[in-house]
Amino acid sequence: VASKNQTTLKAEPNKAYLTITREFEAPRELVFRAYTDPKLYVRWQGPRNSKTLLDKFEPRIGGIYRLVHDVGEGQTFGWHGVYHEVTSPERIVSTFEIEGLPKGHVGLGTIVFEALPGDRTRMTHTEVYATGEDRDTAIEAGMMSGVTEGYERLDELFAGE
Amino acid sequence: VASKNQTTLKAEPNKAYLTITREFEAPRELVFRAYTDPKLYVRWQGPRNSKTLLDKFEPRIGGIYRLVHDVGEGQTFGWHGVYHEVTSPERIVSTFEIEGLPKGHVGLGTIVFEALPGDRTRMTHTEVYATGEDRDTAIEAGMMSGVTEGYERLDELFAGE
Repeated sequence: VASKNQTTLKAEPNKAYLTITREFEAPRELVFRAYTDPKLYVRWQGPRNSKTLLDKFEPRIGGIYRLVHDVGEGQTFGWHGVYHEVTSPERIVSTFEIEGLPKGHVGLGTIVFEALPGDRTRMTHTEVYATGEDRDTAIEAGMMSGVTEGYERLDELFAGE
Repeated sequence: VASKNQTTLKAEPNKAYLTITREFEAPRELVFRAYTDPKLYVRWQGPRNSKTLLDKFEPRIGGIYRLVHDVGEGQTFGWHGVYHEVTSPERIVSTFEIEGLPKGHVGLGTIVFEALPGDRTRMTHTEVYATGEDRDTAIEAGMMSGVTEGYERLDELFAGE
């Protein structure tokens, strides 16, 4: 089922950040909960064909998270980080590192949830890296793969499908 | 006493990061320890006229830190963050937020220690923000004040003064 809400990725050349924008047919409190409740989070993270393991999930200041996606045929990919800020229902700030790359290429993500009329929500996710190269490496390593699909899974979760 | 080692700050216009470079007359292990041992850390952080309180100091993944500098006459300023990576003796990655500003303006710092010949060390500190404006706000809010002096205090600590 095609979603009425499109995922927008903005990644200008020679900049070290990217911005993902997405709207959801759900009130802000519920969208925030889908990002911080492990039972909900595991249901929409990652590509549709993957099994997602929440190895660690502590959405609070200083908390660690680590996810491993099992995409079948023995292939897994993981990512992890720490939470700098978790303010319900408006903002989550956390670090982000893809595993299996040289260490030290870390992103800083700020996710802002805005309440829209009609119990809708706009989510803006800005991810910044130390260099533009780091950002592009993250994109090429598959950071975006599954993201669009993940949001569609989230739509379905909100729709109760 | 003027230091033989100069602190270099590079902050190009329209970029969201800054880079601080500094060399020290001490081996890498000792410089790393000055960043991670609370007894040493508190001795050189901040401006010379300040009293520094380590409210929280947990240099490990997921650990929190919070420093408050008391600069006298009832004036204090604080900053805090979380550690994403602490790899002895080569790298520390952590978030950084100045208190007393609107929330959500967070930096991501990567500190790399390189061993130089003659038991010397080069420290490179890259700090990246979500926007160039955030970076400049941090600089203007006094992020750099005391940094140069702090490194001079660290020279003195290494020299055993």
